[in-house]
Amino acid sequence: MTKKQPARTRPAKSTAAAKKTAPVTSSAAPQRADDDPIIALDLPRAALSEAMKAYFGKCDEKLGFLPNVLQAYAFDMPKLEAFVAMYNDLMLAPSGLSKLEREMIAVAVSSYNRCYYCLAAHGAAVRQLSGDPLLGEQIVMNYRAARLSPRQRAMLDFAVKLTAEPWKVEDEDRDALRAAGFSERDIWDIGAVTAFYNMSNRMASATDMRPNPVYHAQAR
Amino acid sequence: MTKKQPARTRPAKSTAAAKKTAPVTSSAAPQRADDDPIIALDLPRAALSEAMKAYFGKCDEKLGFLPNVLQAYAFDMPKLEAFVAMYNDLMLAPSGLSKLEREMIAVAVSSYNRCYYCLAAHGAAVRQLSGDPLLGEQIVMNYRAARLSPRQRAMLDFAVKLTAEPWKVEDEDRDALRAAGFSERDIWDIGAVTAFYNMSNRMASATDMRPNPVYHAQAR
Amino acid sequence: MTKKQPARTRPAKSTAAAKKTAPVTSSAAPQRADDDPIIALDLPRAALSEAMKAYFGKCDEKLGFLPNVLQAYAFDMPKLEAFVAMYNDLMLAPSGLSKLEREMIAVAVSSYNRCYYCLAAHGAAVRQLSGDPLLGEQIVMNYRAARLSPRQRAMLDFAVKLTAEPWKVEDEDRDALRAAGFSERDIWDIGAVTAFYNMSNRMASATDMRPNPVYHAQAR
Amino acid sequence: MTKKQPARTRPAKSTAAAKKTAPVTSSAAPQRADDDPIIALDLPRAALSEAMKAYFGKCDEKLGFLPNVLQAYAFDMPKLEAFVAMYNDLMLAPSGLSKLEREMIAVAVSSYNRCYYCLAAHGAAVRQLSGDPLLGEQIVMNYRAARLSPRQRAMLDFAVKLTAEPWKVEDEDRDALRAAGFSERDIWDIGAVTAFYNMSNRMASATDMRPNPVYHAQAR
Amino acid sequence: MTKKQPARTRPAKSTAAAKKTAPVTSSAAPQRADDDPIIALDLPRAALSEAMKAYFGKCDEKLGFLPNVLQAYAFDMPKLEAFVAMYNDLMLAPSGLSKLEREMIAVAVSSYNRCYYCLAAHGAAVRQLSGDPLLGEQIVMNYRAARLSPRQRAMLDFAVKLTAEPWKVEDEDRDALRAAGFSERDIWDIGAVTAFYNMSNRMASATDMRPNPVYHAQAR
Amino acid sequence: MTKKQPARTRPAKSTAAAKKTAPVTSSAAPQRADDDPIIALDLPRAALSEAMKAYFGKCDEKLGFLPNVLQAYAFDMPKLEAFVAMYNDLMLAPSGLSKLEREMIAVAVSSYNRCYYCLAAHGAAVRQLSGDPLLGEQIVMNYRAARLSPRQRAMLDFAVKLTAEPWKVEDEDRDALRAAGFSERDIWDIGAVTAFYNMSNRMASATDMRPNPVYHAQAR
Repeated sequence: MTKKQPARTRPAKSTAAAKKTAPVTSSAAPQRADDDPIIALDLPRAALSEAMKAYFGKCDEKLGFLPNVLQAYAFDMPKLEAFVAMYNDLMLAPSGLSKLEREMIAVAVSSYNRCYYCLAAHGAAVRQLSGDPLLGEQIVMNYRAARLSPRQRAMLDFAVKLTAEPWKVEDEDRDALRAAGFSERDIWDIGAVTAFYNMSNRMASATDMRPNPVYHAQAR
Repeated sequence: MTKKQPARTRPAKSTAAAKKTAPVTSSAAPQRADDDPIIALDLPRAALSEAMKAYFGKCDEKLGFLPNVLQAYAFDMPKLEAFVAMYNDLMLAPSGLSKLEREMIAVAVSSYNRCYYCLAAHGAAVRQLSGDPLLGEQIVMNYRAARLSPRQRAMLDFAVKLTAEPWKVEDEDRDALRAAGFSERDIWDIGAVTAFYNMSNRMASATDMRPNPVYHAQAR
Repeated sequence: MTKKQPARTRPAKSTAAAKKTAPVTSSAAPQRADDDPIIALDLPRAALSEAMKAYFGKCDEKLGFLPNVLQAYAFDMPKLEAFVAMYNDLMLAPSGLSKLEREMIAVAVSSYNRCYYCLAAHGAAVRQLSGDPLLGEQIVMNYRAARLSPRQRAMLDFAVKLTAEPWKVEDEDRDALRAAGFSERDIWDIGAVTAFYNMSNRMASATDMRPNPVYHAQAR
Repeated sequence: MTKKQPARTRPAKSTAAAKKTAPVTSSAAPQRADDDPIIALDLPRAALSEAMKAYFGKCDEKLGFLPNVLQAYAFDMPKLEAFVAMYNDLMLAPSGLSKLEREMIAVAVSSYNRCYYCLAAHGAAVRQLSGDPLLGEQIVMNYRAARLSPRQRAMLDFAVKLTAEPWKVEDEDRDALRAAGFSERDIWDIGAVTAFYNMSNRMASATDMRPNPVYHAQAR
Repeated sequence: MTKKQPARTRPAKSTAAAKKTAPVTSSAAPQRADDDPIIALDLPRAALSEAMKAYFGKCDEKLGFLPNVLQAYAFDMPKLEAFVAMYNDLMLAPSGLSKLEREMIAVAVSSYNRCYYCLAAHGAAVRQLSGDPLLGEQIVMNYRAARLSPRQRAMLDFAVKLTAEPWKVEDEDRDALRAAGFSERDIWDIGAVTAFYNMSNRMASATDMRPNPVYHAQAR
Repeated sequence: MTKKQPARTRPAKSTAAAKKTAPVTSSAAPQRADDDPIIALDLPRAALSEAMKAYFGKCDEKLGFLPNVLQAYAFDMPKLEAFVAMYNDLMLAPSGLSKLEREMIAVAVSSYNRCYYCLAAHGAAVRQLSGDPLLGEQIVMNYRAARLSPRQRAMLDFAVKLTAEPWKVEDEDRDALRAAGFSERDIWDIGAVTAFYNMSNRMASATDMRPNPVYHAQAR
């Protein structure tokens, strides 16, 4: 992972045949981690910009590992930087939605889209931020099974409808959020987080992006 | 749980309104467990037959707890006994399918049907039987993301098609299982386990059946 | 059908090719019955247990024929006995639902799942039990076309929703049954009959189970 | 049905409430026939044109009754005549498709669209023209369960795809019909009969058109 | 186009392979028009009847061109005449629906069915009849985005439901049209225009019918 | 649009009732433009950052107008800047996909999602960049009707599958792109553009974003 020897996100071309012959080995230790390679595209990693070098360091320091999505984008600095900027604004900047609520949307959307990467990563985030491991599991499995407040139920109903049938979202749907106490700006944010994970889920599916195995055991 | 004081599976009538006002309480300890009541129907528990008394004892001894599905059926002995007999035959009797494979089908079907109860309970079983926590998570989230052998991929493809569009299952689908090495009897068993969880998923959804919280942390 | 010479449910392996070349012969008499073989799996029939021998005799006496589903399961006594026990409890034991209502659910579910076996067999049952041949046809074709009481319409709406999208069944759906006059136990039974035919439909589709031709002309 | 006293197809305005309270009366004789009124719209019948008077007479003579669809259109002569002209050309004029094949398409399309009127009327026609009552039932229930020739299977596969997802029909689909032996003109006719029943199914659903009860018992 | 030398609607057999190799040529002028051939079936054109000769002349005079759908049907006079009679009655005869409203239904239905021919031809008609080019575009793209009157919104909601799920249309849906001010006859007409375009869309898809290029630039 | 008097994107709260009473006025001139207000959320516009002031000026200079999506995001500079950075990288930076190809993906995705804003804006872009107005219309209506090269057909097939059912995208789908000549990096870019418009479509639907009317007449 130095500038001189760029690690490849994937050492050889992915072929359908190769995947099909990879067996489940339930008795023996796996030969390689679930996230090796991180994606099913063979893209040489680029040199990190100064900003991204700092950001990766900060992630590693804060989380103890580097989320694979960042490694996946690291073949191209402008793409990585644009993704990071949008992610940080949506998920971390001030908003009428709590950080937990934004993660709840991420998981409900990813559950509809059955996105392995995002369910693993953001399911862990809901477990951590809520201190309620069951809540994370419920939204991964079926958010309707969670015992949510009316506010949060309205929020996830909107997010899932916007994910499943965006062409049917109308004034009535926005009015339901207003009735649940959300402001105009909150509605934008619910829409924006929903939209962002509809993008991210598809990047993960397009590339068979694998989550860091560490997520699975977090905050259980 | 004596004959004199039958425990109710649900102390009061379920109403949509009541559920909507139950808040997510992320900072405080929950007032009651996720599985209290076990189902959203108010059915008084019946006296256990001798056979079921023995069976419940055996479960408790082996698992350390009594699966809620058994408590849910315990309002009527013939229903409980019929369910237990079918479950035990399908999941535990000799078969060309390993017990792990039967649990993998249970989870893949329950994932399609987004069944909270069965994903929690059988997701734990896949994690335990495989010794591979990630495999359990992958099948809960999207079985296509798991790195399966061709045999197990063919098995789950058949199970999910039979779940989603049973009217389209034809000779070609059975021939694909034969080509993957399954016998005539194996094909029956794949069909039967798939069919059984399509039943169980719907019992759980019809009654809002809640899994024992203990499942969530098992074999992570 | 003796222990020494077990009849096979299917004389030769099913192949997609073989089926494709079997012509519609509209002018000549068919060479074999529609239900020969009964299923598309080659499973040797087992010796009947005493209980099943008695049960088959009773069926034959009461109906004048043996339903093919029983023959299909007769390769394995524990599976046959578990199926028979569950079927008899659900469809024949005392319940707040009449036997006709339970058959109406069976047909509405099987219509959604487009299950040839169950539509033939249970469509005949609705015609017989109701004394109204049109009612049987309407539920086979589209239950919304039948002129049902509000109670029965609510019952079938719940059954079809639970069949089509079990993940969306919530307290509101149970409350709609309560408002239509159903008790807590009735709701369990509606759910259980619906769930059972979601299982049976899939066993029939998984195995290409063929109904006894006699059903088609019954009670017209 | 004279010019002076036009019979109404429906004596009073249809209301949702009225329908909901019409009970299933399984023990008593129904007060009115299933097809009274014929449609759920209150349209006064027009005077028949000479051509239609002759046509209705011919229908009655040939069939012994007047199909309700003709009565339904009889509020307006140009609409009735246009419908009759198109129907007769498609279903009765010379074609590379037999009359039975055209009726098979009608039923397969109507099954996809769950159209009560057309399944009753054209199901009867398949039973009659084929002399094979089971064939009619199978196509009503699930055409994939019928043991069809490759030619007829290809024909119904095209018809059902064109019904379900017309936007996905492409050269490959037409080529599959050519490979099954159909001529260019045959492909037009398969498309045209499929398209016509997609129209007729929707007229029946839009108006709650009721089939003549006589169809149900024909050719069983 | 004389009787002696019938023009073919398509000079050579359509093959999937041929279509796949036809490149997008963005820089050079296209070799042939988008509507050459008009359909993907090789059907020799028949001699026009006197009535159709007159009708084609009238079309050409009024529109300045002959709609390709008429050319497509011109291989067989009875089919052409039946189509023309039904089209003219539905779209041009007196009705409680304005001609614009009938075209709006045509476009909303064709948008659901993603029918290239009908969207091009009837999208142009909505632009022309409304004098509002945006209205045409909105209904092509998503009628819910158009700022419609309650009457027209109810009309298109009914048309799209009847297109998408005809089996779910019931008294409630007709009552919603009555509440929006439509008469019994209007409801027939809304149903009939919707049904007709469900037919036409499928004829266009079955044959890969190509719209006259002139439509695209009309009334922008 | 000065710092002192921030223009509101929407002068009054959107209500479902208000929209429903806005009539189609086909004879009179509309009172307000289709894009007034731009979105159905009442968000005060923020002061533009220097970078965005320059960017807006450049847009206006190059296009002659400011795309409404930029005005919609202009209530918050970090959100606007993140969107602009990602858009410019994806749609304008060097790539193995031509700018036209990227716009073709945008339109095919937006057609699946029936997004009025993006179909209007990017449909115009395809017409302009291709010099082929019909190509733009075809992809808006049904990309399968366009006569595409195998490369571009494979590209849009992948984009539409990733939009419709991202959970089913697997190695086979990536291999189909490789077989059509796309590089590993090209596959990333196809995925990324598809993913981005799945985000943008949902932002537009969540907010009822209206396209600048100028798009509709461009490059016809």
